[in-house]
Amino acid sequence: MLALSQGGARGAFLRRLSDSDVPAPYGDKVEALLDAAEFDRPTLVIDLDRVEAQFRALSAGLGDAHIHYAVKANPHPAVLARLASLGCRFDAASRAEIALCLEAGAPAHHVSFGNTVKKPGDIAWAHAVGVDLFAADSDEELAKIAALAPGARVFIRLLVEHSQADWPLSRKFGCAPEEAVRLMGVAREAGLRPAGLSFHVGSQTRAATMWGPTLDMVAEIWAEASEAGFTLDVLNIGGGFPAFYGDPVEGPEAYARGVIDEIRARFPQMPGYVMAEPGRGMVAEAGVIAAEVLLVSKKRPSDIARWVYLDIGKFSGLAETMDEAIRYQFETTADGAETGPCVLAGPSCDSADVLYEKRPVQLPLALKAGDRIRILCCGAYTSSYSSVGFNGFPPLDVVCI
Amino acid sequence: MLALSQGGARGAFLRRLSDSDVPAPYGDKVEALLDAAEFDRPTLVIDLDRVEAQFRALSAGLGDAHIHYAVKANPHPAVLARLASLGCRFDAASRAEIALCLEAGAPAHHVSFGNTVKKPGDIAWAHAVGVDLFAADSDEELAKIAALAPGARVFIRLLVEHSQADWPLSRKFGCAPEEAVRLMGVAREAGLRPAGLSFHVGSQTRAATMWGPTLDMVAEIWAEASEAGFTLDVLNIGGGFPAFYGDPVEGPEAYARGVIDEIRARFPQMPGYVMAEPGRGMVAEAGVIAAEVLLVSKKRPSDIARWVYLDIGKFSGLAETMDEAIRYQFETTADGAETGPCVLAGPSCDSADVLYEKRPVQLPLALKAGDRIRILCCGAYTSSYSSVGFNGFPPLDVVCI
Repeated sequence: MLALSQGGARGAFLRRLSDSDVPAPYGDKVEALLDAAEFDRPTLVIDLDRVEAQFRALSAGLGDAHIHYAVKANPHPAVLARLASLGCRFDAASRAEIALCLEAGAPAHHVSFGNTVKKPGDIAWAHAVGVDLFAADSDEELAKIAALAPGARVFIRLLVEHSQADWPLSRKFGCAPEEAVRLMGVAREAGLRPAGLSFHVGSQTRAATMWGPTLDMVAEIWAEASEAGFTLDVLNIGGGFPAFYGDPVEGPEAYARGVIDEIRARFPQMPGYVMAEPGRGMVAEAGVIAAEVLLVSKKRPSDIARWVYLDIGKFSGLAETMDEAIRYQFETTADGAETGPCVLAGPSCDSADVLYEKRPVQLPLALKAGDRIRILCCGAYTSSYSSVGFNGFPPLDVVCI
Repeated sequence: MLALSQGGARGAFLRRLSDSDVPAPYGDKVEALLDAAEFDRPTLVIDLDRVEAQFRALSAGLGDAHIHYAVKANPHPAVLARLASLGCRFDAASRAEIALCLEAGAPAHHVSFGNTVKKPGDIAWAHAVGVDLFAADSDEELAKIAALAPGARVFIRLLVEHSQADWPLSRKFGCAPEEAVRLMGVAREAGLRPAGLSFHVGSQTRAATMWGPTLDMVAEIWAEASEAGFTLDVLNIGGGFPAFYGDPVEGPEAYARGVIDEIRARFPQMPGYVMAEPGRGMVAEAGVIAAEVLLVSKKRPSDIARWVYLDIGKFSGLAETMDEAIRYQFETTADGAETGPCVLAGPSCDSADVLYEKRPVQLPLALKAGDRIRILCCGAYTSSYSSVGFNGFPPLDVVCI
């Protein structure tokens, strides 16, 4: 209705098709919806069949290991319901996430409570509804769990200090490795059942072989705990399963099989309950964001880089561009033309709402206000990070098909 | 109900009282509410009388200049209604923010649309309801405004490249200074009315004298525009008015008067309509967040710094801790005891949800899970930045009294 230019602004997209190395960013079903829809605000479209395919591929690679989907990556009820219907299990960060899993049809014993920093009320509620597997990395958290979920099973999260991930984690989670066996003793003393270990190699760890050094450390602690008389069965390998953001990554089945091989090489006997918590690796590639260009400008005519402002930014779904850590791929209605470097920014009156500046993005020189843009592999950590309405812009809308 | 420790956990706060240099962080009315309330989640309490006092102090210092409150800092309807009742004007970033101002009782001609990156539909809607003052910093934005708000008044935003603010802005907003007069010509050609200039010295600019170098540049462009035949009246000096976060800042009246003096020294004749857009400087000191400690731990016993995890973090209200830019002050129920360094983190399962790590915070050694904590001067840029519910944690609640 308010498009400023005729024809071109609502022109066709030149789709990035798959080749042998990289997955197709979205299928025909999504393409048809995107072409037909006139969204009035930035919208994430999730292909549930793609989520299912990813679950099946990861499952095939993981063999006997169980998937506990990391709900925080995308807690949309339709995503959880599809996964629950396939027998997928879940890892939740809070009472509200556990409730979503139960509403999606998961039995409580398929839900782990993996946050090492839990609200006391959430622990008591989880215990009351039947969740029985909790994470801890400190004395005080174990005391909370012992008081509010007496007799529960706990796994001890280990701090991973040297990650090879694209987005290494901070030191926020996990105890020092040499503390783990002592904490198992604390748990047992408090009437809890120490069940195993967990760790996280870091988000977007691009090759299975990168898991080696971390698994060396974990296997050593596991052996120490066994020698100390603990009978462990839970090996929670966390997330880190990568998604495709432009740089080649292994496919999900081969990657998952590679990780299992790395584990098998280090554990004389496979733990009874190996669990993995893919979040990004489950849903990122199943989502495309439909957005719009609001403005293209230069600060002065002699500048080489243009500024391209979108109707979505850091505070309305693209928080993972923080420090330019995750680099999204784009398709625009002007694709095919000659490109030039752009600084990409969001629509808010906030100067921190700049997406890519240090390493500009190549976009068509013909790009202009009103052009549509698609942001690929956006199924994870987008809608859940949206602000409630910073600058009066509504949160990212989500449509599942 | 679920408190783990008796007595101490719900103990008394040792309030930071005002001295001659710094404002009291909150008054007795807020103190009484905080003491009596049992919030079930992190809650921002806004003292509307404090907002009013701040408006009056800024107005006194600004003299004939008009305040357009930057709605994005805190768009709570009660804040807007109180300010509107005092005759305060508003600066809005979007259609939704304009609508909030009108609902609060502001006439449309008291609302400026200061975002230089506007959605086309928002421009048309604003024009239709009577908003007549728009920002622009580029040819394309002027074309959008000319098409959708024909005849409107526009001011040209200047890029400020050398800021002395605590939180300097990026290059996101504003044209190069030498482009401004050309853009005024473009506006006039397109049937718009070029009304003046705007700029922003950067958020949290702590002394009025720091405005000097920027005002030198602005006065020069203003003179050039006059020589080129433009009759300007709007000088929009933006925000930058500071709040107290621990380091001394000038009081609002003296600061505002100082800024006006800096303008007067550079403009032979004061512009007809000087407008300021305080956001942080209007509401930050009127807000206190009531939160809770979820966990205190060490990664290993020999560590000096503890990790303190709160039930509020980067994704639920404290986004301005990004890069540790804004350093909040804290009060806890354990205050008065010996302190030690802490890394402060939020409750989410996200390793980026760490508030202060590079420069740790001093907190009581006696602090433990269940203790209450108050975060001071949190009225600006907290509730509006909250995520919709990352990790299942609800957005920051807001109570205005």
